[in-house]
Amino acid sequence: MDYDAQLDAAIGRLHDEGRYRTFIDIERRNGQFPHANWTRPDGAEQPITVWCGNDYLGMGQHPVVLSAMHEALDATGAGSGGTRNISGTTVYHRRLEAELADLHGKEDALVFTSAYIANDATLSTLPRLFPGLIIISDELNHASMIEGIKHGRCEKHIFRHNDVAHLREILEGLDPAAPKLVAFESVYSMDGDFGPIEQICDLAEKFGALTYIDEVHAVGLYGQRGGGVSERDGLAHRIDIINGTLGKAYGVMGGYIAASERMVDAIRSYAPGFIFTTSIPPAIAAGAAASIRHLKGDDALRRRHQEQARVLKLRLKGIGLPLIDHGSHIVPVPVGDPVKCKMISDRLLRDNGIYVQPINFPTVPRGTERLRFTPSPVHTPQDMDRLVKALDALWSQCALARQSLSA
Amino acid sequence: MDYDAQLDAAIGRLHDEGRYRTFIDIERRNGQFPHANWTRPDGAEQPITVWCGNDYLGMGQHPVVLSAMHEALDATGAGSGGTRNISGTTVYHRRLEAELADLHGKEDALVFTSAYIANDATLSTLPRLFPGLIIISDELNHASMIEGIKHGRCEKHIFRHNDVAHLREILEGLDPAAPKLVAFESVYSMDGDFGPIEQICDLAEKFGALTYIDEVHAVGLYGQRGGGVSERDGLAHRIDIINGTLGKAYGVMGGYIAASERMVDAIRSYAPGFIFTTSIPPAIAAGAAASIRHLKGDDALRRRHQEQARVLKLRLKGIGLPLIDHGSHIVPVPVGDPVKCKMISDRLLRDNGIYVQPINFPTVPRGTERLRFTPSPVHTPQDMDRLVKALDALWSQCALARQSLSA
Ligand SMILES: Cc1ncc(COP(=O)(O)O)c(C=O)c1O
Ligand SMILES: Cc1ncc(COP(=O)(O)O)c(C=O)c1O
Repeated sequence: MDYDAQLDAAIGRLHDEGRYRTFIDIERRNGQFPHANWTRPDGAEQPITVWCGNDYLGMGQHPVVLSAMHEALDATGAGSGGTRNISGTTVYHRRLEAELADLHGKEDALVFTSAYIANDATLSTLPRLFPGLIIISDELNHASMIEGIKHGRCEKHIFRHNDVAHLREILEGLDPAAPKLVAFESVYSMDGDFGPIEQICDLAEKFGALTYIDEVHAVGLYGQRGGGVSERDGLAHRIDIINGTLGKAYGVMGGYIAASERMVDAIRSYAPGFIFTTSIPPAIAAGAAASIRHLKGDDALRRRHQEQARVLKLRLKGIGLPLIDHGSHIVPVPVGDPVKCKMISDRLLRDNGIYVQPINFPTVPRGTERLRFTPSPVHTPQDMDRLVKALDALWSQCALARQSLSA
Repeated sequence: MDYDAQLDAAIGRLHDEGRYRTFIDIERRNGQFPHANWTRPDGAEQPITVWCGNDYLGMGQHPVVLSAMHEALDATGAGSGGTRNISGTTVYHRRLEAELADLHGKEDALVFTSAYIANDATLSTLPRLFPGLIIISDELNHASMIEGIKHGRCEKHIFRHNDVAHLREILEGLDPAAPKLVAFESVYSMDGDFGPIEQICDLAEKFGALTYIDEVHAVGLYGQRGGGVSERDGLAHRIDIINGTLGKAYGVMGGYIAASERMVDAIRSYAPGFIFTTSIPPAIAAGAAASIRHLKGDDALRRRHQEQARVLKLRLKGIGLPLIDHGSHIVPVPVGDPVKCKMISDRLLRDNGIYVQPINFPTVPRGTERLRFTPSPVHTPQDMDRLVKALDALWSQCALARQSLSA
């Protein structure tokens, strides 16, 4: 058995398909984000502007977050030193869970090491709690939901993306007595489109299904207090399980679910991905709780965020760039070719100090390769000028199509 | 469909079996660990001594770790703001991975959000890299390895715990041409016994199998530089993939694998649990790297740790308590009854301010319920006196069996 040859073959396949990933080493400068330093492969440093981060609001450098983390480090030390059940539950974890339950108007919340593992652990555990569970899942759900559903080994059905007619059709075909769960997202991060929450809730109610929503790209960003699109639309009470992250708009790390007390109690008690792992450090919990608390009150920051996205879209449309625009904070510019997509990204970085990762297969379907911009309140008008000019020039150099300006 | 009733039933089963878990809320005081505060269910605070933490060396409060974390927070902010591939790779992650590769004498290393997900993601991905892979797994492997192997959906065989004759028997029965992997641990944390690394490596070599070791309870603690039991025994070069945590002896959080460059490259490229999640915060990476670096040089601390375990075992034997003693740093005292185990734990906590979590089914097999003590260099002689006296008294009150002192 030549294991090395097999590994070379596996890596070779990625090179052949043009989807071998090279990591970009960056170093954020606290207080200067989205400005950062890039360590080039030759070891030299180059200043860059990050245009593809998920620290959507710059909370990762907010003084409220940093001082909560410094304080917790001083007060309690680095790690929690244990799993939640064996010496790893601290008052910081409890406070964070209370903050999250309040955020979503739920009885309780449960913190995991990431939203990935929150999705994976929860979705794979639900079939153990509801024997015979059938999961109906949006086809564009995130990898972590797909993995969780797969790991649960229950009956599953995939509905076409955001297609409620298809969802209804599937529900109509299922045993009315069987336990069911509809799993979907509120903001799909690659196209920036919204899930039809209300219609899905209506169908779930009609067919007696539980609802599970991933609000990872919406918490902190939508709703009067940052409770996500389900808060904005007044629908949180109709969702059984809300999943979110502490690593994007909240700027720290970790993930969670918010749900009824008994749902949280059952997941807490049965999910290996929750039970058998060291809990997040108290300082991380403290920073995340401070961030959530702050964003409950800072609706102005959310409005500036949306405004930045609107302005960037307007300006890109102004120079005729193609855009996927569903009115969210995410600005995807389709390129439709993996090689060109990577080339534009490389040249933006090298020649213009503009960092936007090319998004290629398998993160998005082939033929829909794109650049995905995440404008934030901390990007300056000058940052945006530079971006628009650089894209304008590259679009011409690469002979990429433009939209007619009246479109 | 009455979902609430199903949840109540699931939770009820745990109550019925006496294995419903109640979290103990503690707050460590930086610099005073293992001393901490317990927030009692009635809200009152009580000072306690933690005897069941996995911050084995107290590195979670080491100034080297804390100052690295403070510095990184000041320099770069709270979170990484992205997945490793999309703006979430920083110089801190790179330095940590270099530190880990050096620790184990491997070409490269890969950091995950936890050792749980490192096990799960790696083991579930290997069958995709080696089609037809057969995994042979020790029956007492950790939940995260079991989940990873299950999720990989490949052929698997379980060998009796540490039974190399059984492992050989299984290997002999398998297709010689098939790719194989033997998965095991170096220190099993519930009994504190060691895996037979050399004999397993011999068998793996003979039968052309890869070796995968979980050194989660050994890294930082064994070997001249903390590289684990595989370093201590001079066997690291014979292990293909070493898994470890940054959340126990290193006192922070996160997990990793160390392996050849091409193995790391392949896992990095194919494992959803690595790709689709926010990377650990730079401050966490900085703290972990500082901890590893420090422990590479501080063998004295490791020796004091072992000495503490030896002394505690001696003293518990002195009062005739039963002990599982395999010469490691973990001190399990079997009780053999879930109700008594919980009762002793409750009374130690409430009446003596001594916190040791009862370890019941399913973490250990029924009938082997135990208290599991983790003495550390930061426990004082007074702490140990109090523990031994309290156990002595409770053992009598509960009419539990003692060993004859000559045993
Ligand atoms: C043997 C073993 N492997 C892996 C893990 C998971 O490590 P982590 O806490 O970093 O997820 C644990 C415990 O947490 C463990 O005991
Ligand atoms: C939709 C969605 N869900 C879940 C996750 C996982 O979140 P986390 O980074 O906290 O693991 C991500 C991205 O990371 C995501 O895009």
